[in-house]
Amino acid sequence: MEAVMNNISVEKAKTSKIHEVDFENLSFGSIYTDHMLVCDYVDGEWKTPKIVPYQPITLDPSAKIFHYGQSIFEGMKAYKDDNEKIWLFRPLENHKRLNKSAKRLAIPQLPEAYFMEGLTALLQLEKDWVPTTPGSSLYIRPFIFASGTGFHASPANAYKFIIACAPSGTYFSGSVKVLIEETYSRAANGGVGYAKAGGNYAGQFYPTQLAAEKGYQQVIWTDDNTHEFIEEAGAMNVFVRIGDTLLTAPTNDRILDGITRKSILDIAKDEGIKTEVRKVSVHEIVEAAKNGSLKEMFGAGTAAVVSPIGAFGYKGEDYELPELKDSFASRLKKRITDIQYNRAEDKFGWRYPVS
Amino acid sequence: MEAVMNNISVEKAKTSKIHEVDFENLSFGSIYTDHMLVCDYVDGEWKTPKIVPYQPITLDPSAKIFHYGQSIFEGMKAYKDDNEKIWLFRPLENHKRLNKSAKRLAIPQLPEAYFMEGLTALLQLEKDWVPTTPGSSLYIRPFIFASGTGFHASPANAYKFIIACAPSGTYFSGSVKVLIEETYSRAANGGVGYAKAGGNYAGQFYPTQLAAEKGYQQVIWTDDNTHEFIEEAGAMNVFVRIGDTLLTAPTNDRILDGITRKSILDIAKDEGIKTEVRKVSVHEIVEAAKNGSLKEMFGAGTAAVVSPIGAFGYKGEDYELPELKDSFASRLKKRITDIQYNRAEDKFGWRYPVS
Ligand SMILES: Cc1ncc(COP(=O)(O)O)c(C=O)c1O
Ligand SMILES: Cc1ncc(COP(=O)(O)O)c(C=O)c1O
Repeated sequence: MEAVMNNISVEKAKTSKIHEVDFENLSFGSIYTDHMLVCDYVDGEWKTPKIVPYQPITLDPSAKIFHYGQSIFEGMKAYKDDNEKIWLFRPLENHKRLNKSAKRLAIPQLPEAYFMEGLTALLQLEKDWVPTTPGSSLYIRPFIFASGTGFHASPANAYKFIIACAPSGTYFSGSVKVLIEETYSRAANGGVGYAKAGGNYAGQFYPTQLAAEKGYQQVIWTDDNTHEFIEEAGAMNVFVRIGDTLLTAPTNDRILDGITRKSILDIAKDEGIKTEVRKVSVHEIVEAAKNGSLKEMFGAGTAAVVSPIGAFGYKGEDYELPELKDSFASRLKKRITDIQYNRAEDKFGWRYPVS
Repeated sequence: MEAVMNNISVEKAKTSKIHEVDFENLSFGSIYTDHMLVCDYVDGEWKTPKIVPYQPITLDPSAKIFHYGQSIFEGMKAYKDDNEKIWLFRPLENHKRLNKSAKRLAIPQLPEAYFMEGLTALLQLEKDWVPTTPGSSLYIRPFIFASGTGFHASPANAYKFIIACAPSGTYFSGSVKVLIEETYSRAANGGVGYAKAGGNYAGQFYPTQLAAEKGYQQVIWTDDNTHEFIEEAGAMNVFVRIGDTLLTAPTNDRILDGITRKSILDIAKDEGIKTEVRKVSVHEIVEAAKNGSLKEMFGAGTAAVVSPIGAFGYKGEDYELPELKDSFASRLKKRITDIQYNRAEDKFGWRYPVS
């Protein structure tokens, strides 16, 4: 069956897998919806995107994605409100960041219309897949990779842009125990840390495994030069509350400019919380933990939303964080999710209707 | 047709493409032989490798290679001597480095026997593809990538190891003009620079494009912290001759430990050339260029062999290198290629017979 939505051709799946899915017990990112958006870059241009049944991708063994890590991605969510209406959260920011990543990875810029119209058409088709169990949402994964071929370390001449969707539960359950890293690093000055490039993630797996063996679920990355300043976690930016001030590191070329991070900063200001965007040293955090002024730490990201950090390890010592009743983390999480799920006024204009 | 070579099952291609190939005019890495080796990691182990016709790879859109850059590779060459005998150069070093890369990228270790027997069986089958035109060879690309699925930033549970081969001409023609980088970087302290990880290459494309726009073919990377010390080029380690001393940077966690580099160091010592493995500052190179003691710079790598650098740019100035008659580069290149093509005694025991 062929149809056209927002100028995008749609080839519908013959059968749906939706009835096989246990929406009450969703894990994160492991079940995919019936359709995906595909858009090819060939002969120097992005062709019109198409919606097709979710299906395998076939590539030559010399496709550059297999050899040179030329790939970028985004992570977004679609939220269903009580009236079954579907919403996105600041999707234009994801498009902007995708193109920022694309530039750094020598991938051609993707037109905004292809991204936004493709996304909207796909979500309209997949609307029944957006879960309503508390804490769950439809995780959306736009990605671009080098499909052009050749064993020559240079940019590909062909790319694929795909959007796939996965109904998902929470990323972390409960509070997270993190290790502040002293040896390994995530990103170089002048490198690709600020881009959502595939290679940034693979490089974190081994140090994260080492941390997991010691009982930590995530690593807090520090600058690669001195390891004295905290940067971010594997898939979250990091906030620290000392006394009544909320601190987070400034973005730079090593840190992903998180959309949740900047939204949290805006909401915090709106809540009258004192915020400081400045370098935060490990020394300062450890001292604050010792003298009792360290009140909270939490991660913020699309997948993890706002994830409280229960304890951190540093140089062989563990430091527990207090359990607060009315924490900044819980207030900020409620504010941002109320906007995302259309349960509260959207004074910042962040919600984006899909249907 | 099924056959078994070194315990490896072989499914032969129905027809060969070899007669379509212009062996006199080969580019680098753009034509592939009739067969490839494939080995799957599933259920916690590497299964027995198989040789199959060169063919497309089919993967789920959620395969982690598309999202998290979890991939590594090697680059080797097979050389044909005057008696049509085929040789490899220090192949066990490639296997060792592949596993070093695998460890850092949280990819399971590949058994040496699978690598060596698979490689040998494949090359025995493809021996007619090894070119004999001067400067040409069969470029061999072993690679491993994450085929396991999931939109969760964690190591995959399935991988593919493949060896593909491409009859290839020279990587660079003539001498190379390079830019010493002051802004961008290739690798972080504590990062994955010493691994042959896909992501390390994609990150270089954009800065290399910027350099190309200014007329430079390659970037010489400097340390990400100060940009004062040279590290290596995109796919080559770098040597500098000041007076009669040959200098190269020590390997560290940011620099690929090149097999050509260490072979060149051994040959240079054997030739009675004074070598120093130590940090080489950009300042020192510029000063030497100004006072006339900078005699040579060259890159060394499997693909590029020994590639003389004709000029370098730094802070907007270009510095030309002299054209020497009996350069270290040409002496060392002759010594190493004579060993590789079995034209000279192999006093170091580096040649490895395939047939
Ligand atoms: C490395 C990294 N930092 C931070 C974030 C948070 O960014 P955002 O809030 O835009 O999801 C992400 C993505 O989720 C990430 O991958
Ligand atoms: C970044 C980098 N440096 C150096 C080299 C040279 O290493 P080898 O001599 O082992 O080929 C390579 C690979 O060819 C490389 O990719």
